[in-house]
Amino acid sequence: MNEVRIEPKRLQEFASSLLAACGAGDSEARVVAEIIVWCDRIGRGSQGIWRLPEIGRKIRAGGIVSPCNCQFEENAPSFHRLDGRHGIGHFIGHTAMTRAIELGKQTGVGAVAAFNSNYFGAGAWYVNLAADAGMIGIALSNSYPKVACHGGREPKLGTNPIAFAAPRKQGRNLMVDMATSQLAGSTIRRHLQNNEPLPPDVAVDGAGQPITDPSQVATGALLPFGGAKGFGLSLMVEILASVLSGAGIADQINSAVNSPTQHGLNGQLFVAIDIETLMPITDFHQRISLLEGMLKTEPAVRLPGDERWNHFDDSESNGVLLDPSSTSAIAQFANESGVSVPW
Amino acid sequence: MNEVRIEPKRLQEFASSLLAACGAGDSEARVVAEIIVWCDRIGRGSQGIWRLPEIGRKIRAGGIVSPCNCQFEENAPSFHRLDGRHGIGHFIGHTAMTRAIELGKQTGVGAVAAFNSNYFGAGAWYVNLAADAGMIGIALSNSYPKVACHGGREPKLGTNPIAFAAPRKQGRNLMVDMATSQLAGSTIRRHLQNNEPLPPDVAVDGAGQPITDPSQVATGALLPFGGAKGFGLSLMVEILASVLSGAGIADQINSAVNSPTQHGLNGQLFVAIDIETLMPITDFHQRISLLEGMLKTEPAVRLPGDERWNHFDDSESNGVLLDPSSTSAIAQFANESGVSVPW
Repeated sequence: MNEVRIEPKRLQEFASSLLAACGAGDSEARVVAEIIVWCDRIGRGSQGIWRLPEIGRKIRAGGIVSPCNCQFEENAPSFHRLDGRHGIGHFIGHTAMTRAIELGKQTGVGAVAAFNSNYFGAGAWYVNLAADAGMIGIALSNSYPKVACHGGREPKLGTNPIAFAAPRKQGRNLMVDMATSQLAGSTIRRHLQNNEPLPPDVAVDGAGQPITDPSQVATGALLPFGGAKGFGLSLMVEILASVLSGAGIADQINSAVNSPTQHGLNGQLFVAIDIETLMPITDFHQRISLLEGMLKTEPAVRLPGDERWNHFDDSESNGVLLDPSSTSAIAQFANESGVSVPW
Repeated sequence: MNEVRIEPKRLQEFASSLLAACGAGDSEARVVAEIIVWCDRIGRGSQGIWRLPEIGRKIRAGGIVSPCNCQFEENAPSFHRLDGRHGIGHFIGHTAMTRAIELGKQTGVGAVAAFNSNYFGAGAWYVNLAADAGMIGIALSNSYPKVACHGGREPKLGTNPIAFAAPRKQGRNLMVDMATSQLAGSTIRRHLQNNEPLPPDVAVDGAGQPITDPSQVATGALLPFGGAKGFGLSLMVEILASVLSGAGIADQINSAVNSPTQHGLNGQLFVAIDIETLMPITDFHQRISLLEGMLKTEPAVRLPGDERWNHFDDSESNGVLLDPSSTSAIAQFANESGVSVPW
C-alpha cells in the first residue's frame, strides 16, 4: 500500500465529523478531534485516529456520554473537582486542564481532579496545553487493570501514565509521557496488529513465565517498569488520579476497548504550576536552555519531546503520515457511519 | 561486634548534641536530629546517623550555614519560595513542607520551592509529615551529578529522588521514596563500605561498559532506572526542584560529601494536597483500604512503606538497630567533637 499523507486540518475535520456521526456533541467532537489528530501529528499513532472506531462505538453503545454536561465542584481556591458524567475522556481532560491553568494563574498552583471520566488518550496533549500557557503541566490517569504489582502475577493496576511538560523558548516544549508499565497498552495492541513478538521482560503468565506472544498478554499481566519503582509510581498515579478524585479504583475500571456499554469510571489529576509566580518566563526559558546545554554535550542524548516535535514539523510540511495498517479499519467504520474518508 | 540497639530518644539527643557541637543552632539541631534518627528507626540507615560526621564537617567548614535564617517569599496564595540561605537541608525541608501543609489547608494545594538548600536526606520524612496532617505529600530534590542521561555515559544529573505519601487509617502511611537512578548514591556508598560488588546494570564507564566495583563508580556514571523513563522522571525532578526554584542546576550542584566548604546549592519542591478539600478523610482511608485489599490478594505483594513501618515498630519495641560498621566512625567523630556516645 502506498504511503498515506493528509493535511492536518482535513484529518481533523474528518475525525470531528466521524465523532459527530457517532452521536458526539458538535463542540465536543471538535475538541476531541483536535487532540486525537495532534497525537498523529507528533507521531503517536497509537493514541491517534486509529482510536476513532473504538470511541465511536462506545458513544453509540452508551459507555461514553456526549454531550456530557460535565460539572465542576469549586471545592477550594486551588483545587476543583470535575464530575465528567461519563463523557469523552479527551473532552473531560481538556475541560479539566483548562480550569487547572486558570486556577494556577490565580493562586500559583492549580489542580483539578476528574472522576466519572473515560480513557483520555495521550497525557502529553494536556500538559503541552499548560506549557503553551507558560506553566508546568502534570497529568495522571488510572486505567483498566493490565499490570501486575511488583512481586505479583495478576493484572491489578492500569498502565497508569504520567505526563509532564515544561515550556521552552522556541515552543518545542519538553514533554515526558510514559506508561508506568514496561510497555503501554496501546503499544501491545500495535504489536498484536502487526504480529510482532514482545520482548521477554514485559509480560508474565499466571506461573510467572514471560509472555512474548502479544495475543496472549490478555491471559496474563504486564509488568511495571523498573520493578518496585515502577510499581510505586503506578500506585502514586492510582491514588492521585482515582482514590483522591472519587473515580473507580483499579478493578472498578472498565476497559475502553472491550466494554463499549460500560462507563470507564476512570479518574485523572491535572496540575498547572505558574512559573511567573517565581520568576519571569524568560528567566525560566534561559534556565531550561542552560540545563539542555549541559545534557547535550553528548551527541546521543535527546530530551523527551524532541522526537515528537520533529515529527510534528514533518506533519506540518508534508501532511500527517497515516499507518496503512490502520487506515482500512478506520475507512470501513467511517463508511458504515456515512462519513467519507479524506484519503 | 555485638548488635547495637539504642532507645530512639537517646539516639536523637545524641544526634542533636553532636550537631550543636559542630555549630548548628540548637532548635535546628533538634529538628534535624529527629529527621535523621527517624531514618534509622524505619530501617534506612543510609540516610541515618551515619551521615552525622559528613553534615557536622560541612557545618564546620562553612558549606552548610546554621542557624540559616532561611527566608520565605510569599509569591502567591498556594506557592511560596524559600531561600534556604545554605542551611541544613533537613531543616529547610522541614520548614518548607510545614509551610506547604499550611498553604494546602488554605487553598487545597500548597507548594514550596526551596533554593540555596543542601542535601536533605530522605524525602520520605517530609511526605510522611504531610500524610500525618491528612494530606498527600510530594517531595522532590535535585542532587550532585552522578547519573548519565539515557543514551549517555557521563554523569549529568543527580540521583534526583521522588517521594510520595498518602495517609492510611492506622497511621502506617503509604510511602514511596525512590532515586531515579538504578541505585541511590547512599546505597552505592554502603556497597563501597561493605566491599560488595554492584549488579552489572547500575553504572557504566566512559566506554559504556558496566562498572561493578563500587570504588570505581566515581570514575563513571550511574544509569537511570528503566532507561528513557527513569531519565524522563529525573529531568522532571531537575526542572521542578531546581530550574523552577532558582537553585543550582545539574553541574552547578556541589557534593554533600566531597565539597565541605562549598554550598550545595540544591533545590527542592514540596507539595501538600489537602484531601478534605474533596472528601472526608475517613472516606479516603476507606478508599485506600479498598485499593490495598484489591492488590494484596497475592501474598507476595507488599505496599511501599509496609516494610518501613515494620522496622519502625521493631525500633520502638527493641531500640534502634545500628549498623556496627558505621558506629565506630560516628563514635570517633563524636569523641573528637567532645560528645559522648550513648552506646
